[in-house]
Amino acid sequence: MPQSPSTNRRIVLAARPQGAPTLQDFRLEEAPVPTPSEGQVLLRTVYLSLDPYMRGRMSDRPSYAPPLALGEVMVGGTVSRVVASKHPNFREGDLVSGTAGWQDYTLSDGQELMALGDTAHPSYALSVLGMPGFTAYHGLLNIGEPKPGETVVVASASGAVGAVVGQVAKLKGARVAGIAGGADKCRYVVEKLGFDICLDRYDPQFAQQLANACPGGIDVYYENVGGAVFDAVLPLLNIGARVPVCGIIAHYNDKALPPGPDRLPMLMNILLYKRIRAQGFIILDHYADGFAPFYRDMSAWVAEGKVKLREDIADGLENAPAALIGLLEGKNFGKVVVRVAE
Amino acid sequence: MPQSPSTNRRIVLAARPQGAPTLQDFRLEEAPVPTPSEGQVLLRTVYLSLDPYMRGRMSDRPSYAPPLALGEVMVGGTVSRVVASKHPNFREGDLVSGTAGWQDYTLSDGQELMALGDTAHPSYALSVLGMPGFTAYHGLLNIGEPKPGETVVVASASGAVGAVVGQVAKLKGARVAGIAGGADKCRYVVEKLGFDICLDRYDPQFAQQLANACPGGIDVYYENVGGAVFDAVLPLLNIGARVPVCGIIAHYNDKALPPGPDRLPMLMNILLYKRIRAQGFIILDHYADGFAPFYRDMSAWVAEGKVKLREDIADGLENAPAALIGLLEGKNFGKVVVRVAE
Repeated sequence: MPQSPSTNRRIVLAARPQGAPTLQDFRLEEAPVPTPSEGQVLLRTVYLSLDPYMRGRMSDRPSYAPPLALGEVMVGGTVSRVVASKHPNFREGDLVSGTAGWQDYTLSDGQELMALGDTAHPSYALSVLGMPGFTAYHGLLNIGEPKPGETVVVASASGAVGAVVGQVAKLKGARVAGIAGGADKCRYVVEKLGFDICLDRYDPQFAQQLANACPGGIDVYYENVGGAVFDAVLPLLNIGARVPVCGIIAHYNDKALPPGPDRLPMLMNILLYKRIRAQGFIILDHYADGFAPFYRDMSAWVAEGKVKLREDIADGLENAPAALIGLLEGKNFGKVVVRVAE
Repeated sequence: MPQSPSTNRRIVLAARPQGAPTLQDFRLEEAPVPTPSEGQVLLRTVYLSLDPYMRGRMSDRPSYAPPLALGEVMVGGTVSRVVASKHPNFREGDLVSGTAGWQDYTLSDGQELMALGDTAHPSYALSVLGMPGFTAYHGLLNIGEPKPGETVVVASASGAVGAVVGQVAKLKGARVAGIAGGADKCRYVVEKLGFDICLDRYDPQFAQQLANACPGGIDVYYENVGGAVFDAVLPLLNIGARVPVCGIIAHYNDKALPPGPDRLPMLMNILLYKRIRAQGFIILDHYADGFAPFYRDMSAWVAEGKVKLREDIADGLENAPAALIGLLEGKNFGKVVVRVAE
């Protein structure tokens, strides 16, 4: 799609998905590129982060954030270049991270922006050094509290959050079992990320393999998927286990509650007799207190090569809807980033 | 039933209950009164505590303690009098608390015994100053962490645990809504125990009344019942709520999981988007570190009249089975204690 420099392409929510989102739930619109007023910058989106939480924002069921309105620009974390500045803290050409959403251009008053300076890997601000990395770090360390020798299990182990959870758990001395979709991802998780083992959730024997991989049970289960993975994990949780609840992507497309029996009382009973702590968190709550220590630690680990992350890059804003649909189906291999501009 | 001083009556588990226990699941046996060896005391049971956890010990489904074997004496906390001592720390006539179970006499090496000294109210060692009081105190303060002005909800509000939870929460400055079965209990909970309000769980409008009683939502829900009460609480939980999971008595007699739909994913989703901490605990884990500070605080509150507890006394060991069955049906009014001897 040819693009005039005076045109702002943006992708808006066209319809609320019924179950899994389809391409028809998004609409690409064009609008004039806005002009910054005094105190504002004009940002050109370079990278757009795609993350599972976006599915929730497309629905109007209860959630931690108000739903997107129909016709509103899809939200998203971004790395952008300042193309015009009337703000004293930013200059043309600066790279910044922010939340410009699914569009080529946006205005900002600078409040949410973080200057990236000279960085060899600006897209990391959307993954290991940004929201997903902070999500992994906070949930694992402040809720999961892994101790040396304990067993930590995390799914989506090659994804933006799971990959960081597992690598940080290894740095803290835990034994780490990952779960991923397919042999390629599992091989990568063990060989490149250093997990002790990785199980293929598509294997018909997955639940038994997970049990075999955790002979001493599970002390920390970092919940980011739900569904059949949680069902396999539940009987393996140890007394005193911790379950940071970060996401349940397997259910984001559910149209209704799954059929019975009703296992809610069973879950409460397991929490009770195994003295388990299950705690949900939303990373937005923790930026004020927690981002700086996270950023300090993670920057060092990345610089030392102790934490790595594979990126799965989609080219072109117009391909963001398909990439998000693929992410929700587990088709990505690594952190999904859309390259919107060079 | 006339009782020879040389006979030890004891009640054993005769059969594993199918659903709610019946009198046929218990059997009263007679055995000789045992004789203490060097280092032992012979104890005469004076009071036997009946508590909901006993239902779990009668089953062989997974729990935190191994199930009772068929034919084994029912377990239970007791206040006993030392009737013969070959132990240097105990003298004939001493009152002690321990776990003699459902029988007239038992031997002890003294390790689990706590001397009660001269106390006006020895049965309190089985309730407000014993395991149920400690359960209330630990779960509320260390997991629930109520803050002044927050709303705390607890069911079985006239029972051994719930009554203490609510009174301690009031002492910590919280607003407290109790839930109890019937108007008499509700009146007692408000007028005698000082809860702000108490809702009758048998009222057909109960869920709506609870919502009306908690216009600012619920910050701490001390879970000791499950079932319809939990269902009414769940939509009212605030962001950041804490749910100490102490028991789910409504489900102890379940023969199978309730019919669907399966609300387990819904519960996980609510934990997530409301950032709720749900944490099970078993009070036996916390005696070593926690009992002394609990006992110090609670003894003072009881002495000052700040924490009260009504007792529901059943007379005679032979009536313990019916009293436990009644407790599990919510027919008791206050802490259930069996007076086994004067």
